[in-house]
Amino acid sequence: MLALVLEEGGIRLRQVDIPQPALGEALVKVRLAGVCRTDLELAKGYMGYRGILGHEFVGEVMEDYPSQRKEGQNLVGKRVVGEINCGCGQCELCRSGKQRHCPLRTVLGLKDRNGALAEYLTLPLENLHLVPDLVDDRAAVFTEPLAAALEIAVQMHLRPDTRALVIGDGKLGLLAARVLQILGCDLLALGSHQSKMAILRSWGIPAIPYREYQPDARDLVVDASGSPASFEIAMAALKPQGTLILKSTYQGTLTLDVAPLVINEITVVGSRCGPFAPALRLLAQNLVDTESLISAVYPASEMETAFAHAAQGEALKILVNFES
Amino acid sequence: MLALVLEEGGIRLRQVDIPQPALGEALVKVRLAGVCRTDLELAKGYMGYRGILGHEFVGEVMEDYPSQRKEGQNLVGKRVVGEINCGCGQCELCRSGKQRHCPLRTVLGLKDRNGALAEYLTLPLENLHLVPDLVDDRAAVFTEPLAAALEIAVQMHLRPDTRALVIGDGKLGLLAARVLQILGCDLLALGSHQSKMAILRSWGIPAIPYREYQPDARDLVVDASGSPASFEIAMAALKPQGTLILKSTYQGTLTLDVAPLVINEITVVGSRCGPFAPALRLLAQNLVDTESLISAVYPASEMETAFAHAAQGEALKILVNFES
Repeated sequence: MLALVLEEGGIRLRQVDIPQPALGEALVKVRLAGVCRTDLELAKGYMGYRGILGHEFVGEVMEDYPSQRKEGQNLVGKRVVGEINCGCGQCELCRSGKQRHCPLRTVLGLKDRNGALAEYLTLPLENLHLVPDLVDDRAAVFTEPLAAALEIAVQMHLRPDTRALVIGDGKLGLLAARVLQILGCDLLALGSHQSKMAILRSWGIPAIPYREYQPDARDLVVDASGSPASFEIAMAALKPQGTLILKSTYQGTLTLDVAPLVINEITVVGSRCGPFAPALRLLAQNLVDTESLISAVYPASEMETAFAHAAQGEALKILVNFES
Repeated sequence: MLALVLEEGGIRLRQVDIPQPALGEALVKVRLAGVCRTDLELAKGYMGYRGILGHEFVGEVMEDYPSQRKEGQNLVGKRVVGEINCGCGQCELCRSGKQRHCPLRTVLGLKDRNGALAEYLTLPLENLHLVPDLVDDRAAVFTEPLAAALEIAVQMHLRPDTRALVIGDGKLGLLAARVLQILGCDLLALGSHQSKMAILRSWGIPAIPYREYQPDARDLVVDASGSPASFEIAMAALKPQGTLILKSTYQGTLTLDVAPLVINEITVVGSRCGPFAPALRLLAQNLVDTESLISAVYPASEMETAFAHAAQGEALKILVNFES
């Protein structure tokens, strides 16, 4: 099968063997997959990952092992999306429902498990979620990043009067802004690309360039900028007892000024993957305009080009279609 | 009156005028006052404060202005402790009960308001709390730091099965450890002074030197060490989705490694002043052994010596008695 592989020398389009599902896993034929900013970071050396890239996909279950005979539980032939963290199932974290923080976990396309930029992938059956018929492939492929945006609402109590600021107009920034808007927040977004800010505005979300922003006492700042430079903007933007949610995964350090953090009792929260079920509900209700986020769709044979396109500043979501 | 004044050249024992209470304020005759580590930091230049030092006290109300005639509300002659932040009363934060975060606030002995290391001080009447008869002066003077320790329980849900680590065996570290113990946490303390760790152990709290600690998956770490070096210990100690509470006020910066913070969804919370009423309740119930925390008591005429003593590594609470 065709796969986009991250090797010592960089990314390569390769012909590799179709994987075999292990015990409790399914073999999934990928229909559509997305390139995430984290994939670009991985290619630069983040996390030291080697293997097939990609962790955003929608696909069809070809085979489960062992086969689930029980009526209604058999996923074969069904359209699915999949949670990317696979826990050991044995440790305290797994037993308390926190598989995605299992220290022994593998992660699709990120850690010790081949990813979704390939014709086939394997995942544990328990990681799979049926895609409702109302959600087409081009929307379903956004389930994973939309779930990551929803994690904000899992981690903190968003109130209808929460004054929120989203920093960053990348894909995750736009999805986070949309989630905060749906949940009723009083919202402003900061961006650096006219075309992306235009999408935010088309959704009714005020968006301005970073340089025009004057701190205005926000309860919540979501940093989805992927850049440590935003940290200072965030700290200036927050009112006392405010919360900064860090959404970006990148290799780097932040320098915190301790005194204002303590004196203003600021909370800084790291935030990663989120819940799939509510993400699929939002998509089924057509509450998230994923279509505007798609910059281009490439066939599998052009995955290297797709990856290069994703690295361009103006690009939003780049998809790879394995059906074409 | 005698006062310990922080001036351009350092701290000086001075004769200064007795202050006049402003509208809505009380004149308080200080009975006993404490030296806090923050006072030592102020003397080193933290916050750029100039004026009379001190923010931990118990005293007697001499005068209120205008006099509160209404029976039962008149505090004159009563023994009180006082919250140290004085808000403007007008801004959104003040109107939502967060006077202590008012951007225009004055703070007793810390910001634009003379402090408690003096024979008399003034504070708004609304800042004062009656001291129950069961709480003697030597306990009451700990109300402010004990309230600061209780702020941890205001900021997060402490459960009886919370696995907590307290870093630092200074006064605030000991009080924080005691509060977490009372609230039922599964607790370990890290210290650097044999005598202080002995106090923790006498309370039934396991305490070991920093160097002996092996990370053991804590839900909560309270950093009361006053040192940025503890940050790394804290990050290693936390389990995924754990919380680090920063209790120390000092001038300095922390360098955060972004990837583990985000991947492990760690929360970092700045924490400052806390609620006085529950602190007084704990003291009235004799649940906090403040007596063991007192290293020495000096008369007002020896405040400079008291301050120097407080700066010594082995010292715990140094008090100044204005009645002697």
